[in-house]
Amino acid sequence: MAEPRRAPGRPRDTSINERALAATRELLVQRGFDATTIQAVAEHSGVHASAIYRRWPSRIELIEEATFPGLSPLSVRPTGDLRRDLRRFIRAYLAAFGAPAARAAAAGLFAHSQTSNRPRPPEMLLRVSARPQFQDILRAAPTGTVDPTVDPDDVFDMLLGAVLTRTLLSTVTARNRPVERTVEMILRILRPLDGPPI
Amino acid sequence: MAEPRRAPGRPRDTSINERALAATRELLVQRGFDATTIQAVAEHSGVHASAIYRRWPSRIELIEEATFPGLSPLSVRPTGDLRRDLRRFIRAYLAAFGAPAARAAAAGLFAHSQTSNRPRPPEMLLRVSARPQFQDILRAAPTGTVDPTVDPDDVFDMLLGAVLTRTLLSTVTARNRPVERTVEMILRILRPLDGPPI
Repeated sequence: MAEPRRAPGRPRDTSINERALAATRELLVQRGFDATTIQAVAEHSGVHASAIYRRWPSRIELIEEATFPGLSPLSVRPTGDLRRDLRRFIRAYLAAFGAPAARAAAAGLFAHSQTSNRPRPPEMLLRVSARPQFQDILRAAPTGTVDPTVDPDDVFDMLLGAVLTRTLLSTVTARNRPVERTVEMILRILRPLDGPPI
Repeated sequence: MAEPRRAPGRPRDTSINERALAATRELLVQRGFDATTIQAVAEHSGVHASAIYRRWPSRIELIEEATFPGLSPLSVRPTGDLRRDLRRFIRAYLAAFGAPAARAAAAGLFAHSQTSNRPRPPEMLLRVSARPQFQDILRAAPTGTVDPTVDPDDVFDMLLGAVLTRTLLSTVTARNRPVERTVEMILRILRPLDGPPI
């Protein structure tokens, strides 16, 4: 396939790390997970395989770092407007998981993890561990808008499931749910049972 | 690995279909997705490969039918007790997705679907299309317990995400969420904003 417009190009005059990571993203989009080997990355990036192995123990860690590098979009400072913060958080999450290289790598990474002897939570596997940011958002919410009896980890897992289903399985999901509907459902889970309407 | 206790054994004196499906489940658990080929199923089941190809166009359809055959557990008649019906529904869903053969096949099926030219929703891919049953449960709920402005498909997708994350990615998920907490969150999404506490 032709290189998608959204696929990150390899920047010039960048470090060995950046060249290897960019080449990995390009190979994932152009040739897929199985074909993205250390050797292929070496040839595509011009970085010697030994230099790549010095930085990443295997192609799995290289692919993980190359496809889910961006926690910064999820590290936004909460405004205290719960709906607005959740919307921004979910959009950033969807963007991180929805990048072409991430879509190309996700199923393969999960298949690999099924047989891995060092299992990790999916958001760690995808290097997007946003539980702290999610809890910051809830803490910043006005008093009375978040039910203290609700476990933030429960809600985060529910949100993670919605994001994973929406992005990683997007090629097999039927509809593209408006973000606002997901925001609305998360707000419904969070609001106190005796609280005012959202 | 030794054959897990939960792996379905091949029943004696059964039809060609049942022998091929049982052998497929055994191979998935014992050797994994990639090794579960039509030829391997033929050798393991004693059914000739040509007879298998007459019934399934490829190993993918065979694996799909072998791993997610059971819609019946999800076709329970609603009692009208929303919490009880949801609990039963979610338990059945988790059981269907949590079977050893299903766990062994899921990541491979999703990886295949990423490159398939006939994309389908994940619950169709997994032959567990329970949207109608979910809507039956909501329809059977007492008046005033389900917000009519909530789209059942939105909630079903959220529930599907929770089930997929919990089961298909279970080898990489950190915690095993009690079913009741998922039931509670779905109830919170469904309840009218001006309704009584759950």
